Order: sequence, then C-alpha cells, then structure tokens
Amino acid sequence: MKSRAAVAFEARKPLEIVEIDVEPPRAGEVLIKITHTGVCHTDAFTLSGDDPEGLFPAVLGHEGAGIVMEVGEGVTSVKPGDHVIPLYTAECGTCLFCKSGKTNLCVSVRATQGKGLMPDGTTRFSYKGKPLYHYMGCSTFSEYTVVAEVSVAKINPQANPGHVCLMGCGVTTGIGAVHNTAKVQPGDSVAVFGLGGIGLAVIQGARQAKAGRIFAIDTNPDKFELAKAFGATDFLNPKDYSKPIQQVIVEMTDWGVDHTFECIGNVNVMRAALESAHRGWGQSIVIGVAGAGQEIATRPFQLVTGRSWKGSAFGGVKGRSQLPGMVEDAMRGDIQLEPFVTHTMPLEEINEAFRLMHDGKSIRSVIHY
Amino acid sequence: MKSRAAVAFEARKPLEIVEIDVEPPRAGEVLIKITHTGVCHTDAFTLSGDDPEGLFPAVLGHEGAGIVMEVGEGVTSVKPGDHVIPLYTAECGTCLFCKSGKTNLCVSVRATQGKGLMPDGTTRFSYKGKPLYHYMGCSTFSEYTVVAEVSVAKINPQANPGHVCLMGCGVTTGIGAVHNTAKVQPGDSVAVFGLGGIGLAVIQGARQAKAGRIFAIDTNPDKFELAKAFGATDFLNPKDYSKPIQQVIVEMTDWGVDHTFECIGNVNVMRAALESAHRGWGQSIVIGVAGAGQEIATRPFQLVTGRSWKGSAFGGVKGRSQLPGMVEDAMRGDIQLEPFVTHTMPLEEINEAFRLMHDGKSIRSVIHY
Repeated sequence: MKSRAAVAFEARKPLEIVEIDVEPPRAGEVLIKITHTGVCHTDAFTLSGDDPEGLFPAVLGHEGAGIVMEVGEGVTSVKPGDHVIPLYTAECGTCLFCKSGKTNLCVSVRATQGKGLMPDGTTRFSYKGKPLYHYMGCSTFSEYTVVAEVSVAKINPQANPGHVCLMGCGVTTGIGAVHNTAKVQPGDSVAVFGLGGIGLAVIQGARQAKAGRIFAIDTNPDKFELAKAFGATDFLNPKDYSKPIQQVIVEMTDWGVDHTFECIGNVNVMRAALESAHRGWGQSIVIGVAGAGQEIATRPFQLVTGRSWKGSAFGGVKGRSQLPGMVEDAMRGDIQLEPFVTHTMPLEEINEAFRLMHDGKSIRSVIHY
Repeated sequence: MKSRAAVAFEARKPLEIVEIDVEPPRAGEVLIKITHTGVCHTDAFTLSGDDPEGLFPAVLGHEGAGIVMEVGEGVTSVKPGDHVIPLYTAECGTCLFCKSGKTNLCVSVRATQGKGLMPDGTTRFSYKGKPLYHYMGCSTFSEYTVVAEVSVAKINPQANPGHVCLMGCGVTTGIGAVHNTAKVQPGDSVAVFGLGGIGLAVIQGARQAKAGRIFAIDTNPDKFELAKAFGATDFLNPKDYSKPIQQVIVEMTDWGVDHTFECIGNVNVMRAALESAHRGWGQSIVIGVAGAGQEIATRPFQLVTGRSWKGSAFGGVKGRSQLPGMVEDAMRGDIQLEPFVTHTMPLEEINEAFRLMHDGKSIRSVIHY
C-alpha cells in the first residue's frame, strides 16, 4: 500500500515528505495507521548523524499513537480497530529479561530492531523500489507503519491520541524513571537537569511521588515557568554561577539531593548530576542519550561515599503490561499531557518541528496526519 | 605515657620503631592497648605518598584489636578491660547519616579524622616533643592509642584478637559489601576483581549468601587456591586473554554477572567490573581506593542498559551496632578468619609485612605487640 511519510534519506538533511510503499504485515506483525506522532530529541539525534547506530534512508519517529489496520498470522493480542501505541522497548513476556521481574529491557526483537529491520530481517518500507530502514521498531513518521506484535501496547480507545502519543516515549520515560528506576519516596529531594519533555515529565513524576524539594536546572530560563507549573520548587541556571553547578547544589542542600536525573544526553551534565547526589545514599539516573563514543567520568570516591550511578530506558516501564494503565492515569488527569504539546502541525511541516526543538522554542510538537 | 610505635615520619620511607608519648584520653575518648593489628593496603597507599589526604609524621594502622585501658570524661559505652576493635568509620547514632537507616557513613568525627586529629582538633601523640598525626581515627601501629568513643566497637572478650583484628577493616569490608551494599541473593552470580584480603572476604560473603557462580579474577594465579577454598567456582587471569576481561566474562555468561566487586583500587579494573555486570540489572561495587585524582569512566550506555555503579566503605557496616555480631559469627566459624593470616610477626618486623604485601606473598600479616 501507499503511505505518506517523512523520510530521512540521509543524515544532516531535512526530512522529505514523499509517498512510500508499505508491505502488509507478516506473521507476528501489525499494520498501524498512525494518527499522531511526537518529535523527540532522539529522532533529531539520529538525523544529526551523531548516532553511531543511525541508518539511512529510514523512516524515523518513535512517539506515536494509532489504530490497528491489519494483523499478520498468529497475532492474537490486538485486532483491527484497536487503539495502540507502538513501543521501541518491546515486551515479549518470555525472554530472560521479561521474566526476571527486574527490568523492562526485553531482548526479543533487539538485534533486528538495532539494524532497522523487522524480526525476520527484512523491511516493509520502500521508496521507488529501494528499501527504507525501520527505526526503533516504530517508524511513526509514516502514516502506515508495520511493527512487531510484541511492540504494540493496546490502550483505551477513548484516550486522546494527540496527547497520549507522547506516552510512546518522553512522558513515560520521565515519569517511569521516577517511580521504577529511582523509586522516589514522599519527602525525598529531586534535581532535574534539562527541562525538555523528559525533564518536565520527571518533575511531574516527582510531584506524583510527593517529593519534597524539586530542583529544576536549565540554561534556558524560559523553561522555568512550565517547570514551576508541574511542581518544581527551586530553579537554577548554571550560567548564573561561576562555580560548577554541583557545588552550588551541594552547598544549597548541605549534602546533596536524594535523586538526580540527567535528561539531556550531555556527559558533563551527567557528571554534575552524579556529584549533586546526596552523600551516603543519593542516586543519579542517566536518561539522556549521549553522542557516539562519549564517556562519563567521575572520581570513584563519589561512589565509595555512597552515591549510585544508574540509567533508565523508557522509564523502566514494561510497555504492554504497564503503559495502558498509565494512559488511564492520563485520562483521569493524574498525568498531565496537554502542557507538553506546545505546537501541533500537519506532517508536511515536520521539519519546522525539528527547528522549534533545536531553537528551544517547543517542548513537544505533535504531528497529525 | 610511653608507647612503642611504628611511626611513618615521611612518605616513601620505612616505618621507624620508636618510643612515642601518648597523652591520656580527654572527654569522649578512649585509651586502648592494641594487642594485634593487621597491615592493610590502605596503610601502604598512604605511606606511598599517593594518598592526597596523607599527613606525616603519623602513626598509621587501622585494622586492630585491643583492650580498653582508660576512658575520658563522659564515656559510658566502654570501660577499662573491655575488648574492642577501633573503627575508622565511626557510629555516633545521632547524626543525619546514622539516623537515616540508609548508610554507615557517620559524619560525627569525619572532619577532624581526615586531618589526623582527635575531635577536639588536637593530637594525643608526640615524639621528642613534636606532634604526630593520628590516622583514620585508629592509629593501631602504636601499642597504646587514643580514639573517640564513637569509634570503638566492644566485642566478645573470648574472641581471638590475632584474628578478629582483621574485622577492623578488610574482612568486614568484603563481607559487608556483599550483604549490605550489593545484597546478593541465593543463586546470584558474583565476580571478584582482585584476590587480596578484601576480595577473598567478598568470596566468603558470597558463599554465605548462597551465590551461584563466583568468578575470581587476578593477575596472580597463586591467589586462586585460597579463592577456591573460600568458595570461588571460576578462575580468570586477565593475562591469559588477548581481549578485555569484561568481554571474556560477558561471553562466558551471555549477559554478564549479577554482582561485580572491584577490590584493588585500579580505575581501569573498576571499568572492567562495571562492564562485566549483567545487562538489565547487574551492579558493580567499587571497594578499592584509587590514587589521587584518578577517575573512572565508561559509556553512559552501560548504565542506560540497566547496570548500576555503586561503592562501599567498610562494607556498609555500622561498626558499633553490627561489628560485635560479626565477631560472634567468626567465633562460630560462620566467618573464617584464620586463612587470611598468612604471616604473624612482632612490631619490630612491620616493614617486612609491607614488603610481603607489595610482593603479593601475603594475604594479611598480623603484627603482635
């Protein structure tokens, strides 16, 4: 079938809106009509060419919502008409990781997903007869996309797809990291480095967890207003200080902050976040994705004196079993999605969404087909 | 009073056995007659001059056992005749950290201890009228030493002081890191990097915790026999492999090891230990003390894919409340101490103990006064 899509033909070039060919779903696969998709920093990261695993030409996009159109042989968990969110972190329920009860990092489709292919090692996308790569198992920048059954979360059909598409990545990642990875407890202090969509979601999760002091840190003070609306209590612009921000935070708090979150992908900020964590028990959660080959560093004394350095992917959320419940939370208003959506636009204007993000003008642009 | 002591007059010089002057304990202090002391790598590290906080001239030693001789004003928890272990990690019971229930890193005497002084900012040691620094709040290389009351664990007087002195540091650190920091569960896999006293204690702790596979890793294969006796199941000499040892371990285990412990103080080994940890939930515990200014590094992807990097000091053990029970464990044979004691010698031969340690010939030398 034909599908309108924004294709990344090569790195560092704008996406091109073209009509691509989409093959029907094979066994264990699902064809989804995407109705809405967010544009996330990870899409921009791959498009920038800095992502060592980036493949071109590809259909990017991984933060979408849509409706099942057709299912391949053997698919039983969804049927045509179901409302769904595609998952870049699959949940097969049967691999070592799914069965561990300790992580959401399912490996069922990991190897092929990393290569931009479906689990059988082929692609469903082509343009003028030439194959296009899939992206993160989702490819939500095509109106019609094919994903593995294990990569589909079935959600309440009453949910607003223009909002809950953001639960395909940013919002779930931030809120999940607070509850699943850090396990923030009432009264705990929290520091959030970077106030994009993920950072703001962390603040929202921290307020849900009844955190005490919530530090919001960004070099763009325009972000502080929304951070405050979501529950942040202290606002720091590192540019306002001559000393390292971790030193400022430790001095403000005596011994540091119980939980810190890096939501940018900057290895220097990751260090600052760790070193802002509380002596004795503070932990720092890396959420942002750093550039190829970049490394984090600190003195081991930081760990020996009781800090822990952790990471979180998709907020530790198991997509098929936990995301539907989080969508219900959003429908009840326990998770606010609307404030994240600063811009909406049709697919044809998707490059504008990237520009707004680069310029720090948007939290999330939502594309509608 | 006069006391025989092995004094570190300056870095990179042998200790000198001399008679020093020891002042009586002041308020909140305890005079201890040390009967036995181990010689630990940390003593050697400070003596080497690589310890940025090292102060000279000083009375080193922090792994001792002895008997209370006299107590200062207000001391109520011990009395003359009590058998005790001096603690380099104090436990006041009232500071933010002691009351947190989350850490053993008491701060009650931290500031002055780091400066080689008693809590009132002065020293009790002098030689020919010139002051000598204390060390780690213990200074067990003097037959008579003065320590803060919060730095004294009262133990069963029936315990063998020539063995339980090792519970003042190495053995407690290794065993405690398994139970308190890593919280190893039955069946978990464990990897131990460095088979000195601490590494061997980690193996013993892992066996207590009913760990499954226990990897023992050292470049000195002479250490493997004792590691095996303590319960290690797999033995790796990194020199036997052309690829990085973390790659070898991940290939041997499919996804890495549940808990890894760095027991050397080498920042490159700390990285190898982290990267040997299991995808999804593995954790790596830094126990070794690295040289001044040295940093650990890795790619943040290691954390985002589910590994945690932590540290442990004195095994997370609260010395005054938990160490007495661990001494009872040792008396019952649940902790074996005798195999650690490869050499015993009088104070006069203490420099030989350092030589044996440097040459990898000893696990622990125990000095008797």
